[in-house]
Amino acid sequence: MIELPPLYQVPNQADLLVTHEAIHPFVHRTPILTNASIDEKAGASLFFKCENFQRIGAFKMRGAASAALRLSPQLRERGLATHSSGNHAQAVARVAQQLGVPAYIVMPHDAPRVKVAAVKGYGAEITFCNNTPAERQSALDKVVARTGAAFIHPFDDYGVIAGQATCAMELIEDTDVVLDTIIAPVGGGGLLSGTALAGRYFSRRAVVVAAEPAAVDDAARSILSGRIESNEVNLTVADGLRTNLGERTFDIIHRYVKEIYLVEEAEIIAAMRLIWERMKIIVEPSCAVPLAAILKHPERFRKQKIGVILTGGNVDVDRLPFGDD
Amino acid sequence: MIELPPLYQVPNQADLLVTHEAIHPFVHRTPILTNASIDEKAGASLFFKCENFQRIGAFKMRGAASAALRLSPQLRERGLATHSSGNHAQAVARVAQQLGVPAYIVMPHDAPRVKVAAVKGYGAEITFCNNTPAERQSALDKVVARTGAAFIHPFDDYGVIAGQATCAMELIEDTDVVLDTIIAPVGGGGLLSGTALAGRYFSRRAVVVAAEPAAVDDAARSILSGRIESNEVNLTVADGLRTNLGERTFDIIHRYVKEIYLVEEAEIIAAMRLIWERMKIIVEPSCAVPLAAILKHPERFRKQKIGVILTGGNVDVDRLPFGDD
Repeated sequence: MIELPPLYQVPNQADLLVTHEAIHPFVHRTPILTNASIDEKAGASLFFKCENFQRIGAFKMRGAASAALRLSPQLRERGLATHSSGNHAQAVARVAQQLGVPAYIVMPHDAPRVKVAAVKGYGAEITFCNNTPAERQSALDKVVARTGAAFIHPFDDYGVIAGQATCAMELIEDTDVVLDTIIAPVGGGGLLSGTALAGRYFSRRAVVVAAEPAAVDDAARSILSGRIESNEVNLTVADGLRTNLGERTFDIIHRYVKEIYLVEEAEIIAAMRLIWERMKIIVEPSCAVPLAAILKHPERFRKQKIGVILTGGNVDVDRLPFGDD
Repeated sequence: MIELPPLYQVPNQADLLVTHEAIHPFVHRTPILTNASIDEKAGASLFFKCENFQRIGAFKMRGAASAALRLSPQLRERGLATHSSGNHAQAVARVAQQLGVPAYIVMPHDAPRVKVAAVKGYGAEITFCNNTPAERQSALDKVVARTGAAFIHPFDDYGVIAGQATCAMELIEDTDVVLDTIIAPVGGGGLLSGTALAGRYFSRRAVVVAAEPAAVDDAARSILSGRIESNEVNLTVADGLRTNLGERTFDIIHRYVKEIYLVEEAEIIAAMRLIWERMKIIVEPSCAVPLAAILKHPERFRKQKIGVILTGGNVDVDRLPFGDD
């Protein structure tokens, strides 16, 4: 196992390279798919990086492994802790299992049964709490005080950011053409900030841009106002993107990402349907946000070679957003 | 374009090799996926040949191309005709489009809108009819009489069988291990008979077996009785498997396939859910029938290396068979 040094500042090119090397035993090198019929519709050449095929079904595995490998052996032995109702919970639980250390996950009472079952299946101890930020934090604090486990933040952590960056590194390396643009969705900004760094360090040409649901447009407002904005309500089908930016992710995104495209809920669902029906792969609604942006702004993306990050595939097939539209 | 000679008897090894070469411009060489968590559940090593990623979303493209390339140029120019409400309709329409010849497709009035739209999208002329075998045949006869187009049978045609065989040829060639068993679903038997031939000619070890919904167990009864049996009713979620065998497919299957495993509807849906949730790919219910059989008969399949043909991914995402079970 490759140990990694802690990261106290924005990861540099060497940090990302060694991170990619170190997390290798924890992640798949996911495939890049293309689809002629979606290309035709978009008027562009799209290269989909399929993190829905990643371990635990989402890119979050990369960041969790990168952060865990940066803990000292003494700290790591006490275990990993986090709060999440989604993919990050599964990622932390799975990484801990592979490292042979305990995992303590705080989840809301109303978390999807399948996600709770998956986290339990990886051998993690679950603490349930009410679904408010304050109660989540307080439950986590208690778990950490009791166990001495290390808290792994879902995104606002340079180790996590370095891990998420490896996704775009592979996208750049495994695509046979030179990409003009790389587009990722933005929630807490771990993936987007890592993608921005990877684009800067490993592609001379690619511009990294983001897509966000208009219903939770905090990131778009944040890069305009120059400070972290939040959302009044967070109702979007793209449930992975409801979070606000963190200090570290905002700092990187504010510096390096100049374009964030907003899309409506119906556009997200239509793009998700397009991916399901044409590509025959299962992706989360969050994944469809970048494709929705590309289809909405043909003047911006036409004839480009575009890397599109598909973030994950953990959906509840009993509750799909499609209707007879 | 490679022209193929007509086939008047069971294709031999050379026939299959030249067919594979000839249909190359019409089909994708689809990937073979594995999944650690399904392997664990099955107690076996499964190699999924993903024809859901095939052009038009199903293996039917192989047989249609193989049959069309066996027509004389004069015949071919008059166009291709068939009756089908499913993947074969799309395959014939798409092959005709690529060959630059007309396609005439007879479809029932109640065919799924998306399939009708797809066939139209490939430029085919559609004739609607009532959904009974007699009316379908009569509508097709009229179309053929009017246009002189060549009828391409969905399965009972040696050209079609040779095309479907190329799927297992690739599965055998592209799998790094020596397969013990290859399993395919059986409806009309085009895929299964082709798979049986490919197994015989290109694998010294692999036994080709079949899986069939218990609700439409005509093929299993046919290999027992030694003649083509039919179903009283044909209600199964695996809508691609409702058909009876044809003379040519029965002849091959009766000779070379000794095991047909029957599975219940709930087992099919559970296996389909497993593929969707674990592999994150979209497959038709018919695809799940072989996996359901493997899970149902662990004593038969345990510790084996098994090639599993996933036949297609054309499902209506608005009407999925999953419930809150």
